[in-house]
Amino acid sequence: MGNVRAIVYGVGAMGSILTRLLLDKEVEIVGAIGRSPKKVGRDLGEVAGLERHLGVTVEADPRRTLAAGADIAVVCVSSYLDSMRGHFATCLEHGVNVVTIEEETVYPWNTAPDHAAELDALAKANGMTLAASGAQDVFWLHLVGTLLGASHTVDAVEGRCTWNVDDYGPEVANHVHVGDTAEAFAQHVADQGWPEFVARQNLEALVAELGLTVAEITSRVSPVLATQPTFCQSLNLMVAPDHMLGTVDTTDVKTNEGPRLTFAMEGRVYHEGQTDVNEWFVKGEPDLHLRNSCVPYRFVTCSSVVNRIPDVIRAEPGLISLNRLGKPSYKHGALRSHLR
Amino acid sequence: MGNVRAIVYGVGAMGSILTRLLLDKEVEIVGAIGRSPKKVGRDLGEVAGLERHLGVTVEADPRRTLAAGADIAVVCVSSYLDSMRGHFATCLEHGVNVVTIEEETVYPWNTAPDHAAELDALAKANGMTLAASGAQDVFWLHLVGTLLGASHTVDAVEGRCTWNVDDYGPEVANHVHVGDTAEAFAQHVADQGWPEFVARQNLEALVAELGLTVAEITSRVSPVLATQPTFCQSLNLMVAPDHMLGTVDTTDVKTNEGPRLTFAMEGRVYHEGQTDVNEWFVKGEPDLHLRNSCVPYRFVTCSSVVNRIPDVIRAEPGLISLNRLGKPSYKHGALRSHLR
Repeated sequence: MGNVRAIVYGVGAMGSILTRLLLDKEVEIVGAIGRSPKKVGRDLGEVAGLERHLGVTVEADPRRTLAAGADIAVVCVSSYLDSMRGHFATCLEHGVNVVTIEEETVYPWNTAPDHAAELDALAKANGMTLAASGAQDVFWLHLVGTLLGASHTVDAVEGRCTWNVDDYGPEVANHVHVGDTAEAFAQHVADQGWPEFVARQNLEALVAELGLTVAEITSRVSPVLATQPTFCQSLNLMVAPDHMLGTVDTTDVKTNEGPRLTFAMEGRVYHEGQTDVNEWFVKGEPDLHLRNSCVPYRFVTCSSVVNRIPDVIRAEPGLISLNRLGKPSYKHGALRSHLR
Repeated sequence: MGNVRAIVYGVGAMGSILTRLLLDKEVEIVGAIGRSPKKVGRDLGEVAGLERHLGVTVEADPRRTLAAGADIAVVCVSSYLDSMRGHFATCLEHGVNVVTIEEETVYPWNTAPDHAAELDALAKANGMTLAASGAQDVFWLHLVGTLLGASHTVDAVEGRCTWNVDDYGPEVANHVHVGDTAEAFAQHVADQGWPEFVARQNLEALVAELGLTVAEITSRVSPVLATQPTFCQSLNLMVAPDHMLGTVDTTDVKTNEGPRLTFAMEGRVYHEGQTDVNEWFVKGEPDLHLRNSCVPYRFVTCSSVVNRIPDVIRAEPGLISLNRLGKPSYKHGALRSHLR
């Protein structure tokens, strides 16, 4: 097999990190797709802050870039299948596999069943694979599933993590209502509801991974309020006390088989010195505990995606939810060496 | 598929725990094999401390018990393939799969290549599988391999664990020279060498799991000395200060591809309140860290073995080293439901 040929689809903060990681792994970047007028027409190396010309121009038209062919598109545009299905479909129709950080694709079968079925069929028809990875792959799904390989009985699985809103740019900061009041947020949720966040899909993938089935699933959101003035870089905004730094998205699952699962994700503007943490408690026989301190979620989202590229290229066609992609693994050196 | 039919091969401390766990998972125990005159002829339930009659008599003759047939033998007799190969061969020859806590079987290809090749061929000839599991499966191999799925580059992987000698009975306590002086131990090692412990096989399995190859591997042992009188339950012995509580077995690997791996296992008589710990540090981009506090190694060795039974029964024939057995997973409820 020759070099892995990839398209960077989305050239925001994550696409920029991914560009550097792909080059480190000797991936040939054959195209880049963006939408910001400030980025379209410029060289990807410059846009990604590499201070190096790559000879790849950021294009606005996905079809033209995809038509030139690639093994895989690394898609980092936005969240939820409802907004991303068109992007994924365009890749698959052009015979390009997709790996994405879009969170719903982790396990879309219940929250977006129609989009999931359509994309699964489209991927199969074109012999391509669509799959998601990111921090959840290692830290919220497979480490936990592996840990439970030591469990004799499981009564409850309780996960919690914190992630830094400022790692993901203004779109995400606005999504978690940074700067709002609790009252305005409560009103917003009452009026418009609250989209279920990656916590739900992640937990559904974990339930499936464990061979269990969902009896009842509930999600809730609560605001995280500043206790002191806290600066949000993404919005260039000083958040006043009693205003929102972000949200805690919690999902609770009761399974038909008995075990209960809970996952609470606190996405917030960090105070000085705060770090990303991942921690899981298993209640049962025996009680088990796993903790990762100082997980750099933004970076590991990108590195996990890059490590998954050979897995996605080799996977069977279709939308492969993360519980079906096999275990994550380190890919040393050039990615092409892992396709043999 | 009907019930899983198992033979408990070895009825010491570990076999006794395993007996209870197998019954919890609705495994049908069809035979038990022991060697102590105090146990042979008695009912397994009584020997395993269950205060319950199982209708299974502990037999001294493996052949008679194995000839009656079973899906799998759960073999917990002693360490090292040199002493265990006959037991494994007898099972395989009788058409019984083997899962064992014997540590060399985790990755025997380099330390016992002849035994490994012979057993692999024998297993294949009989259409059976021989594999090892235990605490190392989840905590020293697959959790680490999964964590590295988030690594962009790896310079070094450093693991350390502590385990309680008193969890494993007098054979293990004698093996790690509890009660000896450092001088006597050094003389013993100088005269007779020191068998490479599970640290080596575990690290070799991890190197293989990562797709790397060993350039150089070195193992060393050092004594752990008591600083105060410490009671060893297994030997009913008060260890005096400056006498041995156990050993630290450390293995260092240099790989041809660059990453270095180290694993240090401290097996010792614990002081009051000390708990089993498992901790891994990854140096690279990014640095990563994983810690399990309060891992009950003896128990999770047994629960991991039970969870692996369906995997071993379904695996391809041969000696399947632990890096080739797939990811460990929790098996909820009756084991037979995981063979569908």
